[in-house]
Amino acid sequence: MAKDKLIGVDLGGTTIKFAILTDAGEIQQKWSIKTNTFDEGSHIVPDIIESINHHLDLYQLDPERIIGIGMGTPGTVNRETGTVTGAFNLNWKTEQPVKANIETGTGFKLTLDNDANAAALGEAWKGAGNNDDEVSFITLGTGVGGGLVSNGQLIHGTAGAGGEVGHVVVEPNGYLCTCGNHGCLEQYASATGVVRLAQDSAEEYVGSSKLKQMISDGDEVTSKIVFDLAKDGDFLANEVVNKVAYYLGYATAAISNILNPSAIIIGGGVAAAGEFLRARIEKEWTKFAFPTVRVSTRVKLAELGNDAGVIGAASLARV
Amino acid sequence: MAKDKLIGVDLGGTTIKFAILTDAGEIQQKWSIKTNTFDEGSHIVPDIIESINHHLDLYQLDPERIIGIGMGTPGTVNRETGTVTGAFNLNWKTEQPVKANIETGTGFKLTLDNDANAAALGEAWKGAGNNDDEVSFITLGTGVGGGLVSNGQLIHGTAGAGGEVGHVVVEPNGYLCTCGNHGCLEQYASATGVVRLAQDSAEEYVGSSKLKQMISDGDEVTSKIVFDLAKDGDFLANEVVNKVAYYLGYATAAISNILNPSAIIIGGGVAAAGEFLRARIEKEWTKFAFPTVRVSTRVKLAELGNDAGVIGAASLARV
Repeated sequence: MAKDKLIGVDLGGTTIKFAILTDAGEIQQKWSIKTNTFDEGSHIVPDIIESINHHLDLYQLDPERIIGIGMGTPGTVNRETGTVTGAFNLNWKTEQPVKANIETGTGFKLTLDNDANAAALGEAWKGAGNNDDEVSFITLGTGVGGGLVSNGQLIHGTAGAGGEVGHVVVEPNGYLCTCGNHGCLEQYASATGVVRLAQDSAEEYVGSSKLKQMISDGDEVTSKIVFDLAKDGDFLANEVVNKVAYYLGYATAAISNILNPSAIIIGGGVAAAGEFLRARIEKEWTKFAFPTVRVSTRVKLAELGNDAGVIGAASLARV
Repeated sequence: MAKDKLIGVDLGGTTIKFAILTDAGEIQQKWSIKTNTFDEGSHIVPDIIESINHHLDLYQLDPERIIGIGMGTPGTVNRETGTVTGAFNLNWKTEQPVKANIETGTGFKLTLDNDANAAALGEAWKGAGNNDDEVSFITLGTGVGGGLVSNGQLIHGTAGAGGEVGHVVVEPNGYLCTCGNHGCLEQYASATGVVRLAQDSAEEYVGSSKLKQMISDGDEVTSKIVFDLAKDGDFLANEVVNKVAYYLGYATAAISNILNPSAIIIGGGVAAAGEFLRARIEKEWTKFAFPTVRVSTRVKLAELGNDAGVIGAASLARV
């Protein structure tokens, strides 16, 4: 029987998403389980194995038809050994032999990469990237991550730090970053970065503003609230969004001048602000993009939402 | 007879360099001719053909042993059609069918790329890159160019503008660049950029300095003079070199955080300042490089000098 199905797994700190796809990338079945991080995350890999085996059985899918499993994971992936380190939100304290265990438990070949790279592959293959060989992806969530595809391949770099676009410095001598450097993009364009910019901007701002009022009152302010207030015309919130857009425009232009992708795709929770944010990023990007890049690279929003992870993960199994 | 020789051609505005190499990249013969830019550069391609055919004859090299010709050229290369546009220093006014003409004239397959990419491949293969698959190259000459290798392949991008590292913006609202944007690296780290920084710094500087004196006297100042004076301890010249190093450190760190190459190699005329410049670039780079990058990417000087072009060009013919 011809092998024609892919399994994609998107391992996150809260849920583990699964999908069975055709080799053309169409999702046929999709499910998820909660991530059990108890006992140093020791249940996670067994749970993945059990869930895959159970669902293949449930769907009466002949294992002979499975090309392989692809999985995106937090942490640092050693693609040679198939192990994962530094996945703190999974409660994994030590190096985890993820590939060996899942291959043994399911009988399928597993290909691993980090979650941002998996999402990038998903958007590149079936989302805003239109299956092009030159696609850059930046995800704005709790942190800022990226996945870069050139010549049809992910850029991993020599130590797996390729695509660390959240740590491109956009403000020399700026905010201290968790990485120890100052002024990294992540400090200005992540969900927490947006809130921090809002708080600091509110301190300097003397006009009337609902955002300023909320901050003064000690109300909880999220990046979504900042964007919603900006859309409603709040002056201070718009100043904050303009700053975020400036930094994102600057960083995405640097990426574009270096890689000249057909699309630089913006995804993640913060990008839920949609066209409102994209248009402002593009306006700033235009100032910093090299002329040839300006006419050949497009600034786009991600299109797959939460499915990018499982689709991109599945695409890893194609190789 | 086994095919075991490569021909590399490095086409420049002043000279055309040629080399015959083994398929392992050892130069066996090397020669050059002057670039005849008269008559809209119409003699250039016939001169290349004649020079190759003549030298194969001279060295009594059996054409059956030639794997192919690789060539680096100024201008914008269309790799599909094998044509070149915008090579103003060759006096070419129209699109030139370089590949078709050289293939017809020599009987060998020609692979074309731009000169910065060819030099990058040379350094990656036989120079400071140690034949690694992840190598970034930046060349500091009249302008600032680059060639980026990831997964063993050049990053061309969707419209050939991949690697336009001279146009990464390092000083928002800075000097106007020939590309129309402001604050491009090229305006601060090319030979002319160094001189411009020296002139502007001299205006603001009130202490005693030979560099300031030369500029005040209207003497011709080159980037080499700035570096030589800095090495001699001239205070103003050192300030200028520190600024150049800051911008280069900043830009090379951005490239490093995006690509995480094993080496980021600095070449070109300005890099003749050697370890004096490299050490200062590295110092700045360290501030902006992501921790994983800081321990896995190295800032290096180019090692092949003028041979990088022909060696890298020859490597194009291997594919």
